Amino acid sequence: MSDTAKQLGRKLSAQEFSDSMLDNAADYYRGIARAYAETENVIAVLSDLRTNSSYVYYGKAANMLAIDTAKARRQIPTIWEEEIFRIVHPDDLHRKHLEELKFFDFVSSLPIDIRGEHYLQSHLRMLSKSGAYVTVRHRIFYFCNASKGSVRMALCLYNIAPGMRSATEIINSVTGETIDLTEHDCTDILSHREIEVLRLIEQGISSKQIASLLHRSVHTVNRHRQNIIEKLRVANSTEACKVAKDLGLL
Amino acid sequence: MSDTAKQLGRKLSAQEFSDSMLDNAADYYRGIARAYAETENVIAVLSDLRTNSSYVYYGKAANMLAIDTAKARRQIPTIWEEEIFRIVHPDDLHRKHLEELKFFDFVSSLPIDIRGEHYLQSHLRMLSKSGAYVTVRHRIFYFCNASKGSVRMALCLYNIAPGMRSATEIINSVTGETIDLTEHDCTDILSHREIEVLRLIEQGISSKQIASLLHRSVHTVNRHRQNIIEKLRVANSTEACKVAKDLGLL
Repeated sequence: MSDTAKQLGRKLSAQEFSDSMLDNAADYYRGIARAYAETENVIAVLSDLRTNSSYVYYGKAANMLAIDTAKARRQIPTIWEEEIFRIVHPDDLHRKHLEELKFFDFVSSLPIDIRGEHYLQSHLRMLSKSGAYVTVRHRIFYFCNASKGSVRMALCLYNIAPGMRSATEIINSVTGETIDLTEHDCTDILSHREIEVLRLIEQGISSKQIASLLHRSVHTVNRHRQNIIEKLRVANSTEACKVAKDLGLL
Repeated sequence: MSDTAKQLGRKLSAQEFSDSMLDNAADYYRGIARAYAETENVIAVLSDLRTNSSYVYYGKAANMLAIDTAKARRQIPTIWEEEIFRIVHPDDLHRKHLEELKFFDFVSSLPIDIRGEHYLQSHLRMLSKSGAYVTVRHRIFYFCNASKGSVRMALCLYNIAPGMRSATEIINSVTGETIDLTEHDCTDILSHREIEVLRLIEQGISSKQIASLLHRSVHTVNRHRQNIIEKLRVANSTEACKVAKDLGLL
């Protein structure tokens, strides 16, 4: 992340959070998303993790895909861009979700000042206007809060790339080095206690019973449950179990 | 190019040219250059072909190259970015210049409304801090005036890409299709008359003598000379002869 973005981040975190300040930050990153859509004709989705909302910029490449851009929404009250997800091959959509999580974990494992030096690149099959799947290059950039290091914004770019064959990789955009995502160990995403709780949830045991089994309060168990859901970026406990299994955590 | 950029272009061309209007357009495209430098850590050079000036944004990748970014200029009164050119391998710099010209010719051969759908991608050897050459991915985007189609701005992006091996190609960013640049015939860059004039210039014949040989006025010959220099984007007639030869025009 550049000095300007750092400065913006510092400014934001130094102030009390007022809505106008946060709107400015969103404007700033929306400008970046728009720049990509206009220059490279990509579909650019900017997700604001704080407000749980997204902005979609349909570059001209969207015309080739099975998206009715005239009807598609530009602003979405969630970080999940359904208009795009519904045309991604189901197997790839699941893989995309896991890769995003792993990348999130990878970025969080880095020192704060170099979190902006990496992006994820993968390929997805997406439904074209003609009804066939085409290969799409998918890139994810995370913009972090400069002082606290938390991921504030995620930028997903989609462009049609018929010849693309490479594996999912993390690219260090400063040195050009690449890291195979499968080499990143993400068994630390959940704590031992959280895994313990999730195993019991999976068995259909209620929070009250789990609390009793672990000699903890129901409040504590529910807090674990909430943390698990947030860490795995899913909607509920059932999805959390599925994702944790795919990550090899359960 | 998106609707916003088109609108901007229309606005600009519909008005009488005032300096403030043009400054706004430059601001707009500088925002795009900055977005790339911040998101992908690239070196981004935005050249304004109308005012013959450039703006350079040194993303973090510049730290790996033999550029003293603290001393390097951010604004240059020319479209040629010397700070960067001096660290490009001389053979690649010459090739870059020819490719840029061919791509310029290619873009100009397209219908106006699709000129923003292509970019050029090549690789260059650039001098790293350690004194060795590293492979750099080089992309060129031309932003055209939406109503007149003339290239207004050129955006060059440089990022370190050690594994890059592919040939120079024109990429259609809407469809993902690629065109080998060598397949583009650029023998039409100069007219027959211009080639005739350049052949005589190469032989050391003066404008006055050329005028006499071709039964034209000295004024007309000088106009041809100026057009040749502009079309080949060189500084003088000597360079024009060299570039025209490399393009196979002489």
